[in-house]
This record gives sequence, structure tokens and C-alpha cells, in this order.
Amino acid sequence: MILQPIIDIASVCAGKGVDDFVLSPGSRCAHLTIAMVRHPDINTRTVSDERAAGFMALGLAQRKGRAMGLVCTSGSAAYNYSPAVSEAFYQRIPLLVLTADRPPEWIGQQDGQTISQPGLFGKHVKASFDLPSDYSHPDAEWHVNRTINEAINLANSYPQGPVHVNVPIREPFYPEADEKISFSKPRIVEEQAGVPRLTVEQTADLASEIEKFGKVLVVAGQERRSEAGLKAVSAFSHCWGVPVLADVISNMHAVPNTVRLHDAFLIKQDLELKETLRPDLIITFGKSVISKQAKLFLRKNKPVEHWHIQESGDVADTFQSLTRVIRANPYELLWELSRRVKTPMTENYLNAWLQEDKLTAELGKTYFDNAPDFSDFSALDKVWKAFPEEIDLHLSNSMSVRWGNYLGVTSAETEVFANRGTSGIDGCTGTAVGSAWGTERLNVLVTGDLAFFYDRNAFWHNYPPRNLKVILINNHAGGIFGMIDGPARQDECAEYFETYQAQSAENTAKDFNLEYRFADSYESLDKALGGFFQIGNKPGILEIRTEKALNRKVFDGYKNMIKTTGTAQKA
Amino acid sequence: MILQPIIDIASVCAGKGVDDFVLSPGSRCAHLTIAMVRHPDINTRTVSDERAAGFMALGLAQRKGRAMGLVCTSGSAAYNYSPAVSEAFYQRIPLLVLTADRPPEWIGQQDGQTISQPGLFGKHVKASFDLPSDYSHPDAEWHVNRTINEAINLANSYPQGPVHVNVPIREPFYPEADEKISFSKPRIVEEQAGVPRLTVEQTADLASEIEKFGKVLVVAGQERRSEAGLKAVSAFSHCWGVPVLADVISNMHAVPNTVRLHDAFLIKQDLELKETLRPDLIITFGKSVISKQAKLFLRKNKPVEHWHIQESGDVADTFQSLTRVIRANPYELLWELSRRVKTPMTENYLNAWLQEDKLTAELGKTYFDNAPDFSDFSALDKVWKAFPEEIDLHLSNSMSVRWGNYLGVTSAETEVFANRGTSGIDGCTGTAVGSAWGTERLNVLVTGDLAFFYDRNAFWHNYPPRNLKVILINNHAGGIFGMIDGPARQDECAEYFETYQAQSAENTAKDFNLEYRFADSYESLDKALGGFFQIGNKPGILEIRTEKALNRKVFDGYKNMIKTTGTAQKA
Repeated sequence: MILQPIIDIASVCAGKGVDDFVLSPGSRCAHLTIAMVRHPDINTRTVSDERAAGFMALGLAQRKGRAMGLVCTSGSAAYNYSPAVSEAFYQRIPLLVLTADRPPEWIGQQDGQTISQPGLFGKHVKASFDLPSDYSHPDAEWHVNRTINEAINLANSYPQGPVHVNVPIREPFYPEADEKISFSKPRIVEEQAGVPRLTVEQTADLASEIEKFGKVLVVAGQERRSEAGLKAVSAFSHCWGVPVLADVISNMHAVPNTVRLHDAFLIKQDLELKETLRPDLIITFGKSVISKQAKLFLRKNKPVEHWHIQESGDVADTFQSLTRVIRANPYELLWELSRRVKTPMTENYLNAWLQEDKLTAELGKTYFDNAPDFSDFSALDKVWKAFPEEIDLHLSNSMSVRWGNYLGVTSAETEVFANRGTSGIDGCTGTAVGSAWGTERLNVLVTGDLAFFYDRNAFWHNYPPRNLKVILINNHAGGIFGMIDGPARQDECAEYFETYQAQSAENTAKDFNLEYRFADSYESLDKALGGFFQIGNKPGILEIRTEKALNRKVFDGYKNMIKTTGTAQKA
Repeated sequence: MILQPIIDIASVCAGKGVDDFVLSPGSRCAHLTIAMVRHPDINTRTVSDERAAGFMALGLAQRKGRAMGLVCTSGSAAYNYSPAVSEAFYQRIPLLVLTADRPPEWIGQQDGQTISQPGLFGKHVKASFDLPSDYSHPDAEWHVNRTINEAINLANSYPQGPVHVNVPIREPFYPEADEKISFSKPRIVEEQAGVPRLTVEQTADLASEIEKFGKVLVVAGQERRSEAGLKAVSAFSHCWGVPVLADVISNMHAVPNTVRLHDAFLIKQDLELKETLRPDLIITFGKSVISKQAKLFLRKNKPVEHWHIQESGDVADTFQSLTRVIRANPYELLWELSRRVKTPMTENYLNAWLQEDKLTAELGKTYFDNAPDFSDFSALDKVWKAFPEEIDLHLSNSMSVRWGNYLGVTSAETEVFANRGTSGIDGCTGTAVGSAWGTERLNVLVTGDLAFFYDRNAFWHNYPPRNLKVILINNHAGGIFGMIDGPARQDECAEYFETYQAQSAENTAKDFNLEYRFADSYESLDKALGGFFQIGNKPGILEIRTEKALNRKVFDGYKNMIKTTGTAQKA
């Protein structure tokens, strides 16, 4: 028997651009699987571990900027999506999560693969819908059609996010051998999004207000790289003469007045410097900020006002100083504001930030040119220098993204991705794999051993992304715990915080048919990097083994150098 | 700074027998970690992958029969517990799930590792509590103390299950180097459980009612092996002369009138046989039933009445024929009823079941003695014969537990475990690892390749259970999909249902330091089994490679033999 309303879900998805699905095997979901696989406009892959599958769909959607789909069978299979669903929710990535279910009368009857699926993801989805399990009444088809339309529209509307559709399905699960699947032309409900805009007067008033502040600082949160964003922020920063504090995940590297190395130089204890850098007005847009130093600095040295520009949705009070939420598209508004400058800021404030940034970059260059001991940080400095101009760079949690923020990115053509919605280590590899599937560009994942082995099933499928190269820093532990003071002074540090683990990735590379290279010194790293970033016929992994004690020594040396050098203006 | 109320949680846990914890690394949970690790009466292990950690704690609790503990940091770490939490909920396994969290004012502020943790596990916990994050008011300590007491009491009370305690913790996370942890003697709230009992009159009335039914069938659901259970069910079955339909997970193998091979012989189409076997009264106790054939048979051939004995909690209507729920301890009641027999049943009905079971056992013996092609089923028959008398046998989902039900278990000293709460493949290995940690007995896990590789991180830690031996049936796919008709007739079967996967476990065994053996024929299997079940100094894995086509051929051959042989009474 063919359940036509279930088959028609595929047609609605295809019609609305949800054209890439990550499926996981199961019988209850067979109709959904068959529909997605056979639909001519939908691309499908199957991944057995639903946790990894969830992150792969997230990676695809993160890249494409519109909802991509997931299909799994009933029971705890669906629950394995929850880490990816929560990351998608907080990183505002649209996902259509289709979970097959038993019909409601069979819930709680101790039959296999049955949990309580309606509302399964709690507050971590924009909405959760339940489809009917009975199609005898003609309204049922309408119900399915409008629900799928609504779910996709909601996932894609600002702020984007995951939407869950629970799909109860009765047996028989499989069409008969002589039954043919046919796709209808279902009704598609378009949603045309209007963008909130300030009036000309409101914008002019904002510009006048800005002029009253002596020290204005833009802080860019995590966002995709976009020409519109680069253009608007560059114009605003240039015309007003204000610095842009830009973590590596903000993808603002190409903006001229960007401050990139604040995570390093804000560790300086100099109170005079802090007072110089303290802003009167912070203007923010985008999602999360990585830099712990920037957060501490701004929470302690509060501005008079903090304006956050965001079209709609929840707003975080990241610096405990928020005074105004502006409901507009940030790039449009910043562009408009850049055309309304009467008196730009004096250059002192901008220069204070830029000089610190420049000094820190020079110090770093000297430090690494003098070849400190081989370590996480110094090895990554070499890796960074070997990157091609145009890459998609995935930074995993938790130390990799911090190293990335210390090293910075300057190439205008490089885009940076990181799971900073929940900052989990659970799906960094899966996300990079999904992202690589969606492009021909070179994707590079920089990751640590805990994140890599945690999510090793991200390679357990039959679709190796040959454009993905993994840089694995293997210090055989959660390196971050050796880097901060608290755990290091506890007796149980090595076992319970750093969590020593013995594995190397060589066997994993064999199992998953990855090109494997290894380095544990500058010489072997130089050699291993030769040609590593050329796209061949399989994914590659370069494992860099480092020693805990040297990692700490090199990082401490770097920080001490920054701390003791004094400020740029005095230096 | 030391957060004494958090440290005291460990003392309450220890005082209430929650003395084994699986911890996962993190900073937010540092106080919980340190408290558990340093408490003299608590045993701890650390496991980086929280999904696997959840199942390990479940395995420990499943074995010990009382709540064991989990501790993780904030964010999606906690969400990775959800597959294990849902399995614990439906399998009624007590767990104390402690999740560190940010204090409430920091939720939704785009800081790292923050999701919406209160009530995270929805309907899949018995309750969810939130501890205070502020200890300045003296009631706060009382709040923490009574909440932990209450949570453990609730987890352990019938029907047992997981309880979530969310623990918001403010910085600083770590004690200073000169600060000493000291454990107080906190108040312990005992809970003394009364058991519901029928009166003497009620019991006598039940006995009189039973006598009125000609054909009475006991169906045992999943339960732990217990002397009380074996004694009561044996007595009831013997005194009344009734058969006990006992899936392998019911652990009723030692009951004399047990029917074990119903999953095989109920495929017979003989309507006369079905009418002979149709019960007038079904008496059930315990949790889920595996046998799909038993369910189909009893749903189609409905009894006049179905009584289910269960102390309290939700009751499933497994056979769509439930007419009475009896709130009493099943073993106590069955024992009482066995002493009140006036007229036992005529032996025809009992014998009809036992003869079918015996015939099926004989047919199976002949079939396998004649060495059919090497396959999943025939290889496992050999493995079964090599089992020592006393083992804990873990059967993974989805085909392994079904093979187990076809092969049956006869050793009175063997106990069978399986995750039949949600029947997921996601944590079968982790559960077996946790279970093995809790005993000196030999633990054997029989699993398939999808379940094994899905949960391979169950071995990613520093506590290899040397008393665990894994039998891995590797047919490079989800074998169950090739066994049932529906998927096999779909074009996308191999890729999307069976999900072909190429891995062997050899590299995994290297990575995790497991003793590795391999077999792909009767000869190599014989050799590999030699001494395999002797406990040495590391866990062992025996990988058995089989071919899809032969697996189907041997299984079809077996079923055809059963179908065509006719019933025992005619044979």
C-alpha cells in the first residue's frame, strides 16, 4: 500500500528548496525514505548514527542558508538528534526534522522503538508539529500539506531554526513490488519576508545620537561571510572612524578597521589602557562572541549605551550593558548610517585599538619566527601559514576555535564556521562533513583529539567528502583543562578533567579510508603539509602530536610576552 | 571557594547507596566531579562521550537494581544522555542524572555550553528538579539536601526510573590549592516501600475464577532473573498445570513448564493448532515481550480475559485484550495462588504448547547438526553451545536479541539482559560495559555490526572490562532489513535500508586494546571459540563475518522446515 500523503511530503520539500536530506535507516520511516530517495529533485545520503546525521544536516543547512532535512525512524533514534537540534536552535540554522512515529494509540504499549515523540525537543525547536496517522478524511491531506509548508516556512524565517515534524505511520510500511510511486504537484505556500526598516527620520536621529559619543565600538558576533555585510560594516567603520572588534567567527576579516587579536592583548593588566579602550557606545549585531577577554573587559568597563541591531527574536545581553534593541536588518542600517556622518570620530580611539592589534601581531610573528618548542599553538601557526587563500575553515570546540581567535584570519576569501550555538564538542566533525558535501571548495577542519574521537562516526558512511582536510591536534587529552588554572591544581586533573586518552587517528583513518599524515616536530610538519591541502580522491587527515607540558610552556610564554611588553602607545 | 552544598550532594548519594558514578569531563561540573571522586564511599569513572556514559550508568544500575549516578557539564553534553535516559525510563532502570548548568540569569545569553536544561528530558524522567544557585539563605542547604534525597527515593521506588537534577553552579568552579574538601554527615531521608497485597479473600476469589477457565497461559515479560520469581512462577505453573510463554529476556529459563521457541513455531499457518493454543485467560507480569509472533498470535486469537499483575504505574495493553489490572507484587501473588489450587487444569493445553516447543527444539537440532551454510543463525548456534553455564548474556538490538529468542537459553544460571525499553541500537555496547563493571562474572555481548560500530565509543575510556567478551556478527549491514520482505523488494534496499558498511572490527580492537579473533567458517569459528570465554587480562572480541545471501538462505530454510513439518500432535 502506498501512503500518498507521506509521499507528497517529498514534493512539498522539493518545491520549497529542502532538497538535501540526511536519512537514517529504519522500517517505520520507509515511506519517507523511499519518497525522498526517489524524488528527482531531492539529494539523499544515509547515515546510520543519528547523532552524526543530525550534525551533517546542520552542516549542509549552515552552508546553504536554508532548511535541509532529516529523516529517522521512531524511538531513541529521534532522540539522538537532540545535540544537533539544540546547536541548530542557538546557532539559528534552519532544519526540517522528520521523525517517523507509531500512531498515537500505540504509544506506551511496550512495543519496540517507541518513546514519547510529540514535543520531543522541548524548547530547542521553533515549533513541533504532529501529522495525522489516518488519511480517510479528505482534510488529512490538507493537514499534511499545510503543516509541511508551515514547518519549512517557519524554519527559514528570521531567526532561522530547527522545526520538528513528527510523522505517525501505520503498517504496512513498504509498497508492494508492483506498486509505483508517483509524485503529485502539491500546493506550495510561499512566505515572502518583509524586513523591518527604520524610517529616514529614525535613522537620522540615530546618526545624531552616535555623534554625541566620543568612543564608539562595533562588536561583530558570529555570522556568515557576506558581501553585503562586509560592504556595510566596512563603510560604517570607515565613514565614522570606529573600530570593529571581530572574533574569527564573525567573518569580518576583510573589514579594514578590524581588531582581531583582542583575546590576546586584553589580558594586559594596564588600567590606563583599559580606560583608553573603554567604549561609550557599543553597537553589536550577529550571534555569539568567543573572546572571553572581550566579554570580561566590556562587562567590567561598561559603556554608557549598548545598541544591538537584530530584526527579530530573542536578544542576549552579552556585556550586561544593553540599553537599546534596534529592530532592523543590521547591514542595511549600518549602510544607511554610514551615509549620514556629519562629524566622524576623532582617530585616537580607533588608533588605540588598531595599534594594540598591530603590536600583538608583530609580537606573535617574532615569537613564532624564533621557533618556540613544538606545541599546539606553534604548530597551528605553521598550519595557518600553509592555508590556501580560499578555504572554508571549520574550527572545533573547545581549544581549536580559541587558537583560531589567537591566530586570526586575514584572507578575505576564507570563511570560518564553528558550532558556537551550544559550543559542544559533540558534532564538530559531522558539521564539517555536511558542510563539505554542499560545496566544491576546500574545507579544512581544525580539531582536537577529544572532539575528533567523540564524533568519529561522522566518517561512518559511504560518502567521503574528498574536499575535506582535517588537522587533528592530538595532545591525548582535553587540552583546555591543562591550560586553565583551576583544574591543574586539582589532584584529579589528569584523569577527570584533561581525561587522558591514548588513541592516535591512524586506525580511524584506515577504517574510514582517509589519507593519513603525521607530524610531531617542525620538520615532520613541514613535510606533512606539502601538498596536503590539494584536493585528491579522498579526505585527508594530518595528525599533529604534541606534548602537554610544552603546550602550556609555549602558550604561557606567549601570554607573558604580551603582558610584559606594555601598551602600543607606550611601546 | 568551596561550594559546600554541592559537595554535600556526594554524601547524600553515598548515604543512599548511589555509590557508582560515571562522570564526563567539564569545568562547570568541577565541584560535582571533585566531590564524587574524593568521597571515600563512591566509585567513579570518567567517560568523554556522554551518550556512551549514559548507557554505562544504565548498565551499572540495571545490574545493581538501584540508582547509579551520572554527572556532566552544561549544554549539549546533557542532551547526549537522552537516548540512555529514555531507555532507562521505559526499561524502568533507576538513574540519578546530575547536570551542571549555568545559573538561571545566564540562560539564553549566548554564552558557551548553555541550553535550556530545566525539564530537558521531558516525559522520559520520573521527575526533574532544579537546585538553587544561591546558598546565602539557610534554606538553600535544606533545599539541596531534601531534593537529592527525594530524587534518589523517587528513582528507586517502584516503578523505578531516571530522575533528573539540574545543578546551576556559579564561578569560581575550582577550590583554591590550599582549600580542603570535607564531607559532612548530611541528613538521609529513608523511604520504606510497602508492597500492595490482595486480601486472603481476594486471592481465594481469583483462584476460583482461574478454575473456570479451561486454557490458561502465563506470559512473562522482561524481568531480572530472581530466585523469588523462579520459585513463584514454577510453583504456579506446576500446581495449576499451565504453560509459561517466556521470551529469552524474561529470565524464566529455569521454570519447568516454559515455552521458549514460540517465535519459531507460531509462524505455522495451521488454524487448528492456533485454535488449540488460543488461551481463555492470559496472566502476565513484567515488562516488554520480544516475540512478534506471540504478539500477532495473541492479538488475533484473543483470550476471554487478560489479567496483568503489576504493583503500580502505567500498564501496557500488549495483546489488545487486557481486562484486569491487579495491583500486587506478581511473585507474591503467584506464589499465594499456587497454594490455592483445588482443580488443576487438564494437561491437554499445557502439553500442546510443550510438545510444539519440544518438536521445534528437535527440528532445530537436526537442522544445525546437518551443518547448513555458514551464516548468522548457524554460527550463533555454535556460539550458544560454547557458552559456559554461568554467564550474563547481553543481547543487542535488533537481530541479536531475535536470534537469542530463536535459540533460547536453558542454563538456569545464565541471566539475559537487553535494552528492550526503547529497543534502540544506540547503547547496547555501553550498557554491557557498564554491566560488566559491576560484577566479576563473565559478561557476553552478542551484537551486530550496526549496533557495534554505532556505539564504538563505549570502549573509549581507561577502564577496559576484562570480563566482557563480544560476539560480533558482521554482515556489513543492518541484517534485519534483508530478512524481512518489505525492504528487500525496494530498489533502495542495499543503500538505504540495509545500509551497507564496509568496516571490520580489527582496527577498533587495536585502538581499544581488545583481544581480537576472527571467523568466517565453521572451522575458523571452532578454533576462535577455543578458550575465548576465559577471562584474561583484557576484553575480547570475536568477529564473525557472514554473507547476506547465505544468512537469508539458512534462515528461510529453518522457517520452511518449521512451517512444513506440521504440528507436534500430528507429527
